[in-house]
Order: sequence, then structure tokens, then C-alpha cells
Amino acid sequence: ARTFQASEHQHIRYNPLQDEWVLVSAHRMKRPWQGQVEPSLLETVPRHDPHNPLCPGATRANGEVNPHYDGTFLFDNDFPALQPDAPSPGPSDHPLFQAEAARGVCKVLCFHPWSDVTLPLMSVPEIRAVIDVWASVTEDLGAQYPWVQIFENKGAMMGCSNPHPHCQVWASSFLPDIAQREEKSQRAYQSRHREPLLMEYGHQELLRKERLVLTSEHWLVLVPFWAVWPFQTLLLPRRHVLRLPELTPAERDDLALIMKKLLTKYDNLFETSFPYSMGWHGAPTGSEAGANWDHWQLHAHYYPPLLRSATVRKFMVGYEMLAQAQRDLTPEQMSSSCSGLSRVLVAVATA
Amino acid sequence: ARTFQASEHQHIRYNPLQDEWVLVSAHRMKRPWQGQVEPSLLETVPRHDPHNPLCPGATRANGEVNPHYDGTFLFDNDFPALQPDAPSPGPSDHPLFQAEAARGVCKVLCFHPWSDVTLPLMSVPEIRAVIDVWASVTEDLGAQYPWVQIFENKGAMMGCSNPHPHCQVWASSFLPDIAQREEKSQRAYQSRHREPLLMEYGHQELLRKERLVLTSEHWLVLVPFWAVWPFQTLLLPRRHVLRLPELTPAERDDLALIMKKLLTKYDNLFETSFPYSMGWHGAPTGSEAGANWDHWQLHAHYYPPLLRSATVRKFMVGYEMLAQAQRDLTPEQMSSSCSGLSRVLVAVATA
Ligand SMILES: O=P(O)(O)O[C@H]1O[C@H](CO)[C@@H](O)[C@H](O)[C@H]1O
Ligand SMILES: O=P(O)(O)O[C@H]1O[C@H](CO)[C@@H](O)[C@H](O)[C@H]1O
Repeated sequence: ARTFQASEHQHIRYNPLQDEWVLVSAHRMKRPWQGQVEPSLLETVPRHDPHNPLCPGATRANGEVNPHYDGTFLFDNDFPALQPDAPSPGPSDHPLFQAEAARGVCKVLCFHPWSDVTLPLMSVPEIRAVIDVWASVTEDLGAQYPWVQIFENKGAMMGCSNPHPHCQVWASSFLPDIAQREEKSQRAYQSRHREPLLMEYGHQELLRKERLVLTSEHWLVLVPFWAVWPFQTLLLPRRHVLRLPELTPAERDDLALIMKKLLTKYDNLFETSFPYSMGWHGAPTGSEAGANWDHWQLHAHYYPPLLRSATVRKFMVGYEMLAQAQRDLTPEQMSSSCSGLSRVLVAVATA
Repeated sequence: ARTFQASEHQHIRYNPLQDEWVLVSAHRMKRPWQGQVEPSLLETVPRHDPHNPLCPGATRANGEVNPHYDGTFLFDNDFPALQPDAPSPGPSDHPLFQAEAARGVCKVLCFHPWSDVTLPLMSVPEIRAVIDVWASVTEDLGAQYPWVQIFENKGAMMGCSNPHPHCQVWASSFLPDIAQREEKSQRAYQSRHREPLLMEYGHQELLRKERLVLTSEHWLVLVPFWAVWPFQTLLLPRRHVLRLPELTPAERDDLALIMKKLLTKYDNLFETSFPYSMGWHGAPTGSEAGANWDHWQLHAHYYPPLLRSATVRKFMVGYEMLAQAQRDLTPEQMSSSCSGLSRVLVAVATA
């Protein structure tokens, strides 16, 4: 029998955090790509556009005028998917037709007054200011809602409809599907192994050193063993932290720095403004926030779509939608292509 | 308290087949779209291109020459994600680092010798011939493998790298993730309610008449109550059928006709060659095929990405990747926009 080599031989890997499997077929990168090529990403965005509803001083869809903000700016989404007062669909009449009430709040957070910057082009103190708003909005909305989802869609490829640097916050009266899966897995792991799943996982990755992308005094960035997207990463605090508001000032400064480094690496990889969706997961909040959530560990997921270049992406389609996630390179190969790319390619615009 | 209206008030719905929730925020369709617009889909494809590896008589990547086929053509994928003989990764040394062996076969099935047709433009007997190959390849590969995934990625938007009408077949030594979820849900439903989940579901939809798109003597097409994609549909036989090879000649003819009708409706919706990923799910095969799988019901899922027009798609990004699937119109609204669109827009090219 031949010796197994992950980079040569397809195999499946288990995601213990979200209870899912991925098919890893590394040899598939050899196939030629004749499919869709994305439009080039290096468009020029004007620094200020009075018609862009995210800019300082602009008028939004509902007629409100934005302040002339010069740092971050948090406001209510004008087209929220979740509103605070939707009536309940009432009891279901059949087990195959189950609907439940959903209430919530959707906010938008502008990172910077300028439209032509992105997080990796912002200064470390400017990124730190974003982190502080993430923490405070989690605290504010988390007082009422059990889940506060902070996420950033970056780039047109990720459905982002506005180039101005911003993220969204959707707080909900229910624990979303993926939060439920992470809750179940982390709870089961803790009760079996007497330590938080992601604490042990971070510890193991530090020992194994095969998938680390960046480490700092307080943080780790790694390509998870079960990564689905080509350059997917997981950002973890070293300390056991349940939620964003608990981060100390030193941890926040260090987070700003490691985010800048990670996103600069991403931009350098294909010499483009790297698209991704990212988001934070921490212990549930709301009225049950005081319960024991020690099995949780705060973390952020980065899901970038690019595969081979700035214009060739990985499509999660047929097999992935119908059967199982599939990737064409191993996570280990990806983490090694990420190392070294720390040179800042584009001058920091906010110097 | 206000009266609940699904088309006005956001709510969450449960997918009992795949054990997932979706957030339905119908009011969100009011928001303007300023994001990415897809390239127009009506490109002209030459009927025959000797450099296209899927065409009759063309030379493929591995040097093989295709026969001058004049019906369907099934062959081994030159860049298979699954190969029959990959060695096993061996036992895992830690519960957070679990990998397992994956073996299998990947095939490509050309539907027609011409590159400029699609299933809805093919004649009913031509579609019937495709169905016969689906049944026989399931039988052949299913003799050895527990899961045979037939899927079609149609359109560049769905990562399809070749316009020639074709689908893929990936047979695997493992039950893929989504197959496992459907297995678990259908088994639990049967043991609780003493009938197959999808038999009762089809029955209920026929009674409720709110989400039906097409019905025929042997088949139903409906927008599932828990649909995630805007125009997602579920295709179900009326009779209890476990796998494709069991379909009778009459059921196969009727399937060809209802597929042609469904796909014509799709094309007419935005007057374009409608992109989608679709695939078949039936009871597991392989050495366990003889076990009791009566809780299964054969079905096909259609997942089309378009939302508002031929060039504006739904992006499943930030919130959807990090928290939960979200849709901007109710399934009921979608099924009513589908009815009526049965006129054949583009003349049948194979007349
Ligand atoms: O095999 P193809 O058509 O080249 O590839 C396409 O379908 C596969 C199976 O869904 C996906 O893994 C690829 O990302 C997609 O581009
Ligand atoms: O709210 P936006 O940025 O307009 O919309 C974007 O993000 C949402 C949340 O992930 C998605 O539901 C939309 O499909 C996407 O286009």
C-alpha cells in the first residue's frame, strides 16, 4: 500500500466546531480553469462621494443626513432583514411546516470617513477604534438579544454593494443555525474533555506548527485543519475569552495589529484588495448571558473566495451544495503560501 | 398585536429534511441594489468546437479522443476529485484532527452532441435518454459505492467551466455530509410518524396548493416551505421510489416532460438561459443497499442563484456564511411568480 500524503491523496476531514465534513482533493489544482473570470478588483473609488449613503454628510434612503463623522459611524440599516417588532407566525399546524418568530436589529458600521481605504490600509489606532465599537455594540444589543452577529462582506465578489469600508451587525431574538451548531459542539466537547474545544485546538496548533499563519502576544491566526475555503483562517485569542467586550485594552491593540498583518498578507497574496466575508462568534448574550458558557471561546472566521488569482475564485456549487464541501488544496499548503507575505504592498493611505 | 403576514413580517422557517433554519425577510426586496451585476448570460456558443473537450470527436486533456457520439456520452472526469485507490490517512491522533479515507469515481455526462442546447431546448425523448443514463450510472456505480451524486452546474455563474450541456457524477466510499443529514432526518421522521417524510410532505403540498409549481401524473415540482434560494424547487415522484433505477418507463417519460416544463419556466422568468445547480438524492447504495431504506424518497433539488433579473443574483455571504441562510421573498411569492411562465421563449433548437 502506498504511503498517505495529504497533498497527493484525497481524504475527508471533520470540522468539530460546526459538525461538518470536507472533501480534500489536493491533486485537483492541476486541472486547467476555463470557467468564469471575475472582473478585475482594482477599481478606483473616490475618497468622498456625496451620493454614497455611507459617506459623511450624505443623505440616506430614509432621508436622514449622516453626520460629518471623522472616525467610525454606527447607524441603523435602512433595509433591515430583522426588525424589533415583527408579530409571531403563531403555532405550527404540522411538524413539516414549522415557522417561528424572528425579531432583531440590523446596524451598519462605517470603519472610516474615506471610501478609498480598507482595514489593512487603516492605521492600527484606527482599527482599534473599530474593535472598540464591535465590543460596545455587542454589549448594547447583547443586553436584549441572545445573538449579535458582526460580519463584514468585503468586495463585490462577496455581495458587498458599497465599496465604503464598513461591516454589519445583525442582532436576533434567536440563536442562528451556525451559532446553534457551534454551541452544541463546544458544549459536548467540554462535557467530555473538561476544557473548551477551541482552547485545546489553539494549543494543539501551536504545538503542531503546520497551519499557523500569524501569532502575537495575545492572538493566533491559523488555517483550520477543516478549512473549506482556499484561504480560510480562524482568529483566536490565546486567553480564554467568551465575548468581545471582555477584551483588555492590550488585547485590543494587539488584535488591531494582527488584523492589519493578516489582511495585508491577504492583499499581497494575489496583489489585489482581497475579498472575503468575515465575522465574530462569541458566547450567546441576552437574558441568558449569565448562564455558564465556559465551553465557548471567542473567535473570528475569515472566508475568502479566491483560489488561484485575483480573478479566479472557488465556486461552492453542485457537489458542495448537494453533497459536501470540497477543496482543491490542503489547508497546510495554503498556510505555507500565506507565510512571508507581510510586506505592505500598497502604501498606507492614512499615513 | 398586528396580524402576522409572511410577506410582510420576517420569521424563521425550519428545513426538516436537512435540519436547518432559514430567515425569511420578505420586506427586504424593497432595498435598491447597487452591488455587483453579472455579465449578461446570452452569449452565443458555437454548436461544435473541436477544441472543446466535451464535443464529439474532440481530444481531451489526457489525450483520449471522444467518439462522434450522437446522443449522450458518459466518460471519466480527467480531473477527478475522487479516485478509486487513494490510501487511507490512518487513525487520527486527536479528536480535533479527524481525517478519513475517501475513495470514488468522477464521471462527466454530455447530454447532447451540440454545445448550443440546454435541457429545456432538447426534445422530450432526448431528455428521456439523459434520465436513462442517470438511472444506469446510479446502478453501475451504486453496486460498489454507498453514494452516487449526480449534479449539474449550469451557467458560468454556477462555476460551470464549459457551456456544453453536461452534468457530473461523483460516487464516493462515504456518505457525504448532506446525505447524512437527510438520512438522519428521514429516519427519525419515519420512526416517529410511520411514513416517509417526503411522502407526507408532497401530500401536504398537494392539499395546501400554496407552493406548487407543476404537477403531472407521476411528479410534483414545488418551492419548499423552507427554500433558501429565491427560486429553489424540489422535484418529487408521487409514488414512493427509493432510487432512480426504479423509475418505470412511464415515470421516466413523464419526468422528461416535467423537467422540460420546469426549465422552460426558469428560462422564461428572466428571459435568459437560467443558471442553477441541481442534483438527485436517493437512498444510499453500495453493499448496504439491501438494508431497509424505506424512510427515503427519491428527489431532486434545484438551486438557482438569480434574484431580481438575469444579472442580479442573491449572494449567500456574511450573515448566511456566519449565522444562517436568509432570503428576501417568501417561497409562496416565488412559486406564484413561476406559474404561468410556460410559453417556450426560445424555439426548440433540436426540432
Ligand atoms: O468540476 P468543474 O465543473 O470544473 O468544477 C465545478 O464544480 C465542482 C463540483 O461542484 C466544484 O468543486 C468547482 O468549484 C466548480 O468550479
Ligand atoms: O446587506 P447587503 O450588504 O446589501 O447584502 C449583502 O449581505 C447580506 C448579509 O450577508 C446578504 O443577505 C445579501 O445577499 C448580500 O448582498
